[in-house]
Amino acid sequence: MSEAKGRQENSLMWIGWAVFFVLLIITFALGLLVSSIVTRRKEAIPLPLPRPIARWESDSRKWADAFPREYDRYRMMMESSTKTKYGGAFPRDYLEETPANVILFAGYAFAKDYLQARGHVYAIHDVTHTKRVNEKTPATCWTCKSTDVPRILAEMSPAEFYKQPFSAFKDQITHPIGCLDCHDPTTMRLTITRPALREALQRQGRDLENIPHQEMRTLVCAQCHVEYYFKGEGKYLTFPWDKGFRIEEIESYYDEAEFSDWTHAISQAPMVKLQHPDYEVYLTGIHAYRNIACADCHMPYRSEGGVKFTDHYIQSPLLNIANSCAVCHRWSEEEIRQRVESIQDKTKEVRQRVEETLCKAHFEVAAARQAGATDDELQNPRQLIRKAQLRWDFVAANNGMGFHSPGECLRILAAALDLASQARTELARILATHGVIKPIIYPDISTKTAAQQVEQSFVNGNPPNLLPK
Amino acid sequence: MSEAKGRQENSLMWIGWAVFFVLLIITFALGLLVSSIVTRRKEAIPLPLPRPIARWESDSRKWADAFPREYDRYRMMMESSTKTKYGGAFPRDYLEETPANVILFAGYAFAKDYLQARGHVYAIHDVTHTKRVNEKTPATCWTCKSTDVPRILAEMSPAEFYKQPFSAFKDQITHPIGCLDCHDPTTMRLTITRPALREALQRQGRDLENIPHQEMRTLVCAQCHVEYYFKGEGKYLTFPWDKGFRIEEIESYYDEAEFSDWTHAISQAPMVKLQHPDYEVYLTGIHAYRNIACADCHMPYRSEGGVKFTDHYIQSPLLNIANSCAVCHRWSEEEIRQRVESIQDKTKEVRQRVEETLCKAHFEVAAARQAGATDDELQNPRQLIRKAQLRWDFVAANNGMGFHSPGECLRILAAALDLASQARTELARILATHGVIKPIIYPDISTKTAAQQVEQSFVNGNPPNLLPK
Repeated sequence: MSEAKGRQENSLMWIGWAVFFVLLIITFALGLLVSSIVTRRKEAIPLPLPRPIARWESDSRKWADAFPREYDRYRMMMESSTKTKYGGAFPRDYLEETPANVILFAGYAFAKDYLQARGHVYAIHDVTHTKRVNEKTPATCWTCKSTDVPRILAEMSPAEFYKQPFSAFKDQITHPIGCLDCHDPTTMRLTITRPALREALQRQGRDLENIPHQEMRTLVCAQCHVEYYFKGEGKYLTFPWDKGFRIEEIESYYDEAEFSDWTHAISQAPMVKLQHPDYEVYLTGIHAYRNIACADCHMPYRSEGGVKFTDHYIQSPLLNIANSCAVCHRWSEEEIRQRVESIQDKTKEVRQRVEETLCKAHFEVAAARQAGATDDELQNPRQLIRKAQLRWDFVAANNGMGFHSPGECLRILAAALDLASQARTELARILATHGVIKPIIYPDISTKTAAQQVEQSFVNGNPPNLLPK
Repeated sequence: MSEAKGRQENSLMWIGWAVFFVLLIITFALGLLVSSIVTRRKEAIPLPLPRPIARWESDSRKWADAFPREYDRYRMMMESSTKTKYGGAFPRDYLEETPANVILFAGYAFAKDYLQARGHVYAIHDVTHTKRVNEKTPATCWTCKSTDVPRILAEMSPAEFYKQPFSAFKDQITHPIGCLDCHDPTTMRLTITRPALREALQRQGRDLENIPHQEMRTLVCAQCHVEYYFKGEGKYLTFPWDKGFRIEEIESYYDEAEFSDWTHAISQAPMVKLQHPDYEVYLTGIHAYRNIACADCHMPYRSEGGVKFTDHYIQSPLLNIANSCAVCHRWSEEEIRQRVESIQDKTKEVRQRVEETLCKAHFEVAAARQAGATDDELQNPRQLIRKAQLRWDFVAANNGMGFHSPGECLRILAAALDLASQARTELARILATHGVIKPIIYPDISTKTAAQQVEQSFVNGNPPNLLPK
């Protein structure tokens, strides 16, 4: 009995020791793990700034001392080229690619020169080399191009700045879009540096001091990637959002202000050029609905060693699917690309239908004038053309070929198609009133050169005869 | 020393005992848990059939002995009513709701009677009460309505069955769509019982014996929820898929076969009525792309006690969001509903644009005839109308108001809008050739009654005068 009890106690003691040592080893391993985590966290804590960054430091290289990783990626935009399906040679010439653009913008600078925008680092070079800028261009056009602008805006009021000529600032504005445009140099917090966005949000009653960080990751982009116009004599940069962000609301804003950018050289319709309403279109899409910010897809997080940081190489997510889309969409890259391109293909198809219809409508107005139609008779078709092209441009001028809000873009293009077609039906009747029943002669606009020749003939007052025999 | 060692050994012994008892308790609890799991699994194993189900058992109540849960849910379709946004009073009258339908189907049975389809249990009642069935209706129309059809098709060849009159089977066909339509009564495996789908898939080279189960969960629905037509004299039920599932491919198939369902009573255009191409539209959508079957959303899994089974109460997922959509989309029900409805709103908007344009085009052809235009002159506008309405109907006749493939539906509607508008522009010129320059007189079609009066006047050869003074 006692011997058996002794053996039992002995074996229990051994179990006790075994448990003790196992626990010892586990505790030691946990210690190692925690230490490794703490070390990696330390790597991720920004170093104290080597020296403070000046309040208006517009040279992004100076920021690079403290943020070498962000700057290295930012510099990559020098090499950027949009090699997505709707990319191609870089920068793409939208007039070569879609000669209809020349006709749609007849009499306006976009008919002369309409290249794809390049990366932020090219902002100064490109704005000073485009044919769209001339001696009449106001300083307003600098607003989105340079980190020098916040300093100048602090020195003089926005109203003062906007009303001067573009050429007046050639020496003071030299640094392209960079760090200071979105970051406070002391706290590094995201900040809205451009008055037009602040003013538009304030008119909507937003409290600018309490915008959530995730929304700021979109709003810093919305300083520039929006529809805007130059209001009044002073060319005051203004966002047409007071009635809302939808195209119907923007249209109603412009109609009420009786605003137009130019009179169309072929149809004499009062036109509005949409800029790049990326933010407005994005707001109607699923990604905005799920509170995904611009930066989540275009500036996804990146890891180097133990450091996780925001990738400042801003580019199409299609060029960085693994780090961008695939973080949420766990499909193969090829599948993701296919889905995106199937959206873009549909948008492109409907866009082309609208472009063809709109070009014909512009020419039919011109033909009706040649046949003797009065401005009174042409008032309604011109209004329909204005409304249709405004909608088409809302989709066409925005980046992503419809991807940022696929359904909304197709809905808007369908509305554009309907309005442009209504104009054409009415024009057929107006032409008939003036004895023109056969189809008019549509000039050749199959290439950029051919289209520009046609456009110039209208601009110079020597349009071809469009009336059939 | 020795005393201290004794105390140490003693305390270690206690630790050993403590560990021993803790392990004892854990082991016991694990035993309980496993037993509970095994019991629940047993509940889920189907009982042996109380008695075998006969080979051609068309009465679904007989299947209920072995499958009471499935049958109870199936019976719920008696109470079904589509209370979604695009639902309303049940069954909805599509002619009241959209009087344009009367004009679009002028001269065809759908202009007389076009009610929303009700649940499967109503199939016999509804097909024998619709005004669309008359003495000329072939037996083909029974094909999708009853579990009695497989038996009859086993007794006679499909060709034999289809060519007889509808009325010949009134006594033999009495059970609505039910178990036997999709299940083998011996193995309960999903099975394709209808020849038209088998034949269409065979023509595409599919091996019918090796279709994956997940695809079968869609294909049993595709036996009926598809576009089909009655081929030739024998009214042979045929799916027009030999060139592909897309609307352009289906159109090309019909054009090649020089097929039309009817000649339009107003425009004399050769028309094709699309049925309910739910499967074809679904194939182009994101859910098909992710290999989600019809049954995943319309017959989601359901738990009662330990039993998980397929819900045979087939209904709109919007009426069962928590068990359907929310299994994958972890948002609130309200958010899910909003997203779906925002897709449906866009589809509805563009659909209405197409309907308005198409109605006008039909009347303009009639007006041109009244003004003296010949069939030769009207040939092209009629073809454009046929192409446009085929596309519109592909979206309009399919369930879900565009939801099954939002982008594709909008793309197709935009094409329809373009083609119908082209017809209108051409018609304006043709009318002008015959001296009609002012807008024609469009009859009042604002209600079902008004529209049917107009339609009947064309059918009876007493159309109103459409020509302006």
